[in-house]
Order: sequence, then structure tokens, then C-alpha cells
Amino acid sequence: MTPDSTMQAGPAATGVTARLSRYVADAKYDDLPAGVRKEAVRTLLNYVGCAVGGSNEETVEIAVAALGPFSGPPRAAVFGRRERFDPINAAFVNGASCHVHDYDDTHLKTIIHPGGPVISAAMAVAEYRPIPGKDFLNAIVAGTEVALRLGNCVYPDHYDRGWHISGTCGVFGATAAAGKILGLSRQQLTWAFGLAASTPVGLRESFGSMNKSFNLGKAASDGIFAALLAAGNFTSSDRMIEAKRGWANTISTKQDYDEITRDLGLHFESALNTYKPFACGIVLHPAIDAAIQLRNANSLKADQISRIDLRVHPLVLELTGQPAPMTGLEGKFSVYHAVAVALLQGMAGPKQFTAPVVQDPAVLALRAKVVPTVDAAIREDQADMTVVLNDGRRLDRFIQHAVGSVEVPMTDRALEVKFADLADGILPQEQARRLIDACWSVEGLKDAADIARLGRRT
Amino acid sequence: MTPDSTMQAGPAATGVTARLSRYVADAKYDDLPAGVRKEAVRTLLNYVGCAVGGSNEETVEIAVAALGPFSGPPRAAVFGRRERFDPINAAFVNGASCHVHDYDDTHLKTIIHPGGPVISAAMAVAEYRPIPGKDFLNAIVAGTEVALRLGNCVYPDHYDRGWHISGTCGVFGATAAAGKILGLSRQQLTWAFGLAASTPVGLRESFGSMNKSFNLGKAASDGIFAALLAAGNFTSSDRMIEAKRGWANTISTKQDYDEITRDLGLHFESALNTYKPFACGIVLHPAIDAAIQLRNANSLKADQISRIDLRVHPLVLELTGQPAPMTGLEGKFSVYHAVAVALLQGMAGPKQFTAPVVQDPAVLALRAKVVPTVDAAIREDQADMTVVLNDGRRLDRFIQHAVGSVEVPMTDRALEVKFADLADGILPQEQARRLIDACWSVEGLKDAADIARLGRRT
Repeated sequence: MTPDSTMQAGPAATGVTARLSRYVADAKYDDLPAGVRKEAVRTLLNYVGCAVGGSNEETVEIAVAALGPFSGPPRAAVFGRRERFDPINAAFVNGASCHVHDYDDTHLKTIIHPGGPVISAAMAVAEYRPIPGKDFLNAIVAGTEVALRLGNCVYPDHYDRGWHISGTCGVFGATAAAGKILGLSRQQLTWAFGLAASTPVGLRESFGSMNKSFNLGKAASDGIFAALLAAGNFTSSDRMIEAKRGWANTISTKQDYDEITRDLGLHFESALNTYKPFACGIVLHPAIDAAIQLRNANSLKADQISRIDLRVHPLVLELTGQPAPMTGLEGKFSVYHAVAVALLQGMAGPKQFTAPVVQDPAVLALRAKVVPTVDAAIREDQADMTVVLNDGRRLDRFIQHAVGSVEVPMTDRALEVKFADLADGILPQEQARRLIDACWSVEGLKDAADIARLGRRT
Repeated sequence: MTPDSTMQAGPAATGVTARLSRYVADAKYDDLPAGVRKEAVRTLLNYVGCAVGGSNEETVEIAVAALGPFSGPPRAAVFGRRERFDPINAAFVNGASCHVHDYDDTHLKTIIHPGGPVISAAMAVAEYRPIPGKDFLNAIVAGTEVALRLGNCVYPDHYDRGWHISGTCGVFGATAAAGKILGLSRQQLTWAFGLAASTPVGLRESFGSMNKSFNLGKAASDGIFAALLAAGNFTSSDRMIEAKRGWANTISTKQDYDEITRDLGLHFESALNTYKPFACGIVLHPAIDAAIQLRNANSLKADQISRIDLRVHPLVLELTGQPAPMTGLEGKFSVYHAVAVALLQGMAGPKQFTAPVVQDPAVLALRAKVVPTVDAAIREDQADMTVVLNDGRRLDRFIQHAVGSVEVPMTDRALEVKFADLADGILPQEQARRLIDACWSVEGLKDAADIARLGRRT
């Protein structure tokens, strides 16, 4: 023990946790701007589609089989499946399921996927404690704000250090949403945030394994766990986020508390949420967008292509530099595979990231021709691709903002198509249609849990 | 995102997680030295006494009430209570219960309390998957080794930064013990450790609130959770502890991997475990020991005392500098209260850290006379006390090693007395006696879960 080394902790702030608790406790649906409501509904639709779409993946099969014998009274749906679990275990499975294709929503400023932790927690608690759709949406917005504002406070240092920020910040969002639905007081929310701060989930080292989806599920279930205990007046520190040895100082070398408290309830980070047209990490999207645009504009065939030159942001190779992926999951971490399959098939949905496609000889042949180069002048949402043809022609495409970004968002119609594709083979087409409609009309539902019930396989 | 800042992560090592998994998978009871077995039995006895003794505290009452409606099939005992829970929730409650009086075992080199996470997980899983007492003890030793060796790897930097090391390292110990009982393969243990690394529990900022006990309970339940998923082949990284962005680099600025792998299975950190004669943080023990020795040697009465001068290690005031505690929990973080009550009552058990005693005017009067001074020349297990009497006499006592240390361990008999005191009023005397005997004779039990069944209130 060297007492002096305790000085490495950063400066403490005051009242941050308390102000966050007051915001959540006081948040009202009627105060939400129309654009914020609309984006929350889009987030919900995208989330439910992803949770249904991941529900028959091995990650989810294993979790359901392992946890089933330990589940409490089955009060909450597992999307896309017949099993029902207690709300804590259901939230875990749904949170993992919605992320298993890496297809869920993304806050691009922090690379946080807020929907998994926040909506998985909110949905499972809403089945236990029925609430109207408007209040449900309000809880989702509050939870998303909490997760994203904490992310802004510590990003990028926290993420650079190795933390999976969707889990470490997501657990606060899940806590806020669950706590709001459970009707926690300001003091109880403060304690709940203290317990959430005690369970930061996830390290980036797990990327490429089932552990990555685990992180979002665990953030959801730990958030409910924290809220349930706090509802019984289980105490914590009153300033767990900002204290000298609190959350932000312990898990990050950067702490910008103003990002948490400034314009709370007036400015909404949740309105900046985005949805992926492609079933992999967001860093790959500009390159995939370029590939699909070049393919479609030129009716490209693989046997015409000699070489694909690609200039990308440095993070692309850092996160997705896998040159020889074997599994579907590994394929999501390979810019070589993603570009090759997008050029070949014109799509990058879940089916393009399965083992048979990743190991397809035609894909392998083309991915050997992908030559990515790191360029610090290229932004994260940009990519510059040149396809060199066998006849010597050079086809260029510069992506300024990838489709699915804040600037070029997916349309409502595109979100519906994505949902239907995800639900295909899992839910009957007619049920999927009704589920889409229920998400769009969540604000009119007397009981938000109708969505969970419609999302089960029967 | 600033890719350059990713360079702040420390160097990576190789094979650490894999070697730890091999050790746990291969660990055999017959290979354990007699002294290691004996200390594990003492740890078990002390743990069970603490879990029973904490079982009617508010922290546990709240947890049981909050989690009861969500528990799965009741297969595991909550020590000292009638309720039975599923193993995951039972482990959480028992882990919190055993720490609620701050009276559980301590590895003094790292201030880790391994028993709570490790034995809570092992006991709950042993009720689900029956095993002989010898195998149970073997699993406890393996789990304790894992927790303490990880602690040695990152202590003190990790603790100084703000982490509650009992939770962050304890979850690995719980995972190892649960995984050993569930019969995980080396690969499955590696994945389980990856999931455990994804759920580091606890910040020091929560000390003084119920959240502190939460941390040990959550480490226990998250350890089972990780082991259960890995048993189903839920995957993670194969080198989560030592990778560039793995556990050690992310949560600590110090990484001494040799502490994890050196002499695994030959040297046993678990043999260095100690037990508290006093129901508060270990840093207060030398001062309390001095106070009780001075009181007993001089038949001191409070009205004789003018002033208590005390020289202590700097950590004492850093952790327990609370001058005006109100609750029992706050009293545990007040050197002023601890010294005053020890001088007045000659004891520092759980009863001395309850609100009525903390607020007792006689204690308040005396604690105002306690004058602690920090002295870097005083070791953590030392204290130098001078009681100045009204008649001008000065009574000195220097504590070289506090009672309960490795050098001056509690005797088996003292552990039994402590156990009986903890169980008093919770279990019938005769049942407590049989429970003590069952712990001492665990190696002969055909079913280790007999201890859990005997530890329930009927």
C-alpha cells in the first residue's frame, strides 16, 4: 500500500450523480420534443428486430439452456423464442440477442449501443410492472440519455483503455430505465446508480467472441438488479459517479462532467442514435457502402476485379484487421471479408457474416485482393475506394458519410425492411408485421408489454 | 477516437489465463499440503459464522425481500434464514451477508476478503451439484488461490486507483470454485475467466454503505453466472487476463503476471488467510488491540482518561477518518469510535458497531479524546498508543503485530467463540454447535452441502 499513489485519481466534482437522479425522477413524456420521441420509436423498432433476429444464434441458444434451470417465475418474454424467464434473466438474454449480429443501434460519438442495455431492461421490467406506452418511451429516452451522457464524459480515453463502453455506460442506462418504470425516488435512483457504477461490464479484448454480446446483456440485467435493490432502499454512496474514487476517476483518465449535466432535459443525445444497414461494426460501414455503390453503379462481377484499394480511418485496421476469418463472428472483424462479400453479393446483412459465406471460395478469392491503407486524414465515417479492373480501368468512390449515419440516416421504410429480414424464418410474416406496427404505435399502447408478448414465438 | 492513446495500455504477457485454467482443472485434493487444508477449513468455519451472523442485518433483509420474487427454483440455502433461493441469488445474499459486519477473512497482502466470493459461490453450486467434502475444500482452495494471485498481480495500484479488490479479484475466485465443482474443462475455465474479467465488481467509494457488502455478493453470483455459461461453451477471449486490452491492463497500472503463474500448485497464498477478532476493517485492528490490552492490563475506566494519543499507518486515517459517525456502518470507518468503544467495553464485535453504541453518550465523550496521528514509519499491522490519565500518568502500548495477523493468528478456540457469538440469537445453540462441528469435519462429509442445510434457520 502506497498512500501517495492514491493521488493519481483525478479531481472530484459535486452533485453529478444527484443531478442525474433528479433528471430521471422528474422526466416527463410530455416534455419530450417530437423529434426525440420519433427517434426513440425508431430505436425501439430497430432493437426489437435485432433481438428477434439474434434469437436462434448459438450465443442465445447457449445462454437460454444454461440459465433456464435458474430462472425465477417466467414473467418476461425472450424475443423470438418460446421460453419466458424472470425479468432479470430475460433482460440478459434479450440484451445479448439484440447484439449478436452487431446490427443494433449506435451513438456514433461514443460507439455506444444504448438500445440493448436500456430497452432490454425496460421491456422486461414493463412486463413485471405494466405501464402505458408513453411512459415506457419516456423511460427509454431517460435511460438512453444517461448512458450516452456518461459515455460523452469519459470517451475516448475510457474506450481506448480497453473498456467496452456499451456495457460500462449501458448499465447506468438500464438502471435509469428500470428505475424510472419502478418509480424510484431521487435518492433511490442515486443509490441505484451507485450499484450500477459497481458493476461496469465488458472489455474490448472479448470482441470477436460471444463475450461481446454478453456485455450488453449483462449491462441490462445488472441494471435491473441495481434498480430492484435500490427500490428496497439498499444504500450506496451519494456521489458514486463523480467522487475522488468514484466511477469516472476509476475507469477513465478523462472526466468531463459537464457532458453529463449540461442542458439535461433540453438537449437529447438520444436523438443522435443511428441504425446499421450492415450487420457488423460501424467502422466497416463506409467501406461496405463504397463497395455496394461501386458494384451497383457498374454492375461489377468478381472476375473483372484485379485489386481493391481502400483508404480508411486508422481504427478500421485496429478493430477489423483480421485477414483470414473462419467464423461468422470473425468475419465481422475483417475489413477484407466485409468488402469482398459486399462487392460479390451487394449486401452485408446477417447472412453475409455466417461461416459458410466467410469460408466461400469465391469470397476468399476476392478478399485476397482487398488492400486497405490507413490514412489519418480519413474520418471514421469516410472511406475512399478504388476498384482496379483486369482491363486496367479504375473505378473510384469516396464516401463522405456512410449510409446509416446521422447525416444519411436509414429511412423508416429501410428499417422495416431490415426488421422483416431479421424476423424471416423466426416469426411468421404476419406476426412480424403486427410487431412492426406495435413498435411504430407504441405511444398509443395501454400496456407497453404488448410488444414483448407479440415478440415471442408461439 | 484517438488511436494513439491506445498506446497507454501496458505490455501484454502470454499464456497467463491458460495456465490459471490448467491449474484449476488439474487441482487435486490429495496434492494439498496439510497446512493448506487446515487453513481452508478455518476459512470455511469463519465464513459460515460470518454469513450466519450477518443474516438478520438490514442489508440482507432488503436483498432477500427484493430478490425473492425473482429467484429460480429454491435449491440453495441462505445462511441463518428460512428462505432458500436458486444458487445464483443465494450466492449473492450469502456473499453480502458474510461481509456485512466486516468480520470475514482477509488476505493481508492485498486486503482481499476471498471467503465471501469463493465460498458463497462454491456452497451454492455444491447444493445444486452434490460433491464430497474433500472436493469441496479443493475447489475452495483453487478459487482462493486464483483470487489472491490476481490480487498480488495488480495490488497496490489497482486498489489505490479506487477498486474494491475483493470484488474485482473475488469474481475470478468464485468462477474458479464454481467451475471446478461443475467440472469445467481447461478451455471452458479460460472462457469462464474471460466472462469473469468482464464483470469486475466494486469501487471503494461505496465503503460505509450497503454497497460494500453488495460487492462481495455480486462477485460470488457473477462467478457462478460465468461458470454456468462457460459450461455450455459460451466463448470469450483465450487471454482475457493478460492481453494488451485485457483485464490487468485495463483495471490497473501495475501488472506482475509472475505473481499469478509462479509456483502454481506449490506455493499457496490461501495459507496466508487471516480472520478478524474485531468486526471492522483490518486497518483498525492494531489500534483496537492496543486499546483492549491497555484497558485489561490497567483495569481502565473512562472517567480516568484525559486523552488517547495514537500513532498509526497513513491508511488508517485515509480509510477510517470519520470523526462523527452516526450509524453502525459509519462506526466501522471511524478510528475515533473504534478506539473509544474498545477502551470502554473491551470488545469490538458486531454489537460494538451498531447505532445505539455508536450514538452512546459515553462513547461520544471518549471518542472526542482520541487524537490519531499519521506516521509513515508505522506499518499497517502496527499501532502505538499512549493513554494519558487525568492524574498525569501515561500508559503506553506498542502493537508489533495485531491479533488476527499471520504472526499472531486467532486460535481455533477463538474462532469457535467468535462463531458462537455471531450465531447467538439467530440459530439455536445446539444447531450452531453441530454446524461448527460440520465445518471442522468437512473433509469427511459425503455431501458438502450438509453444511448449507445445517446453516439454515428451520
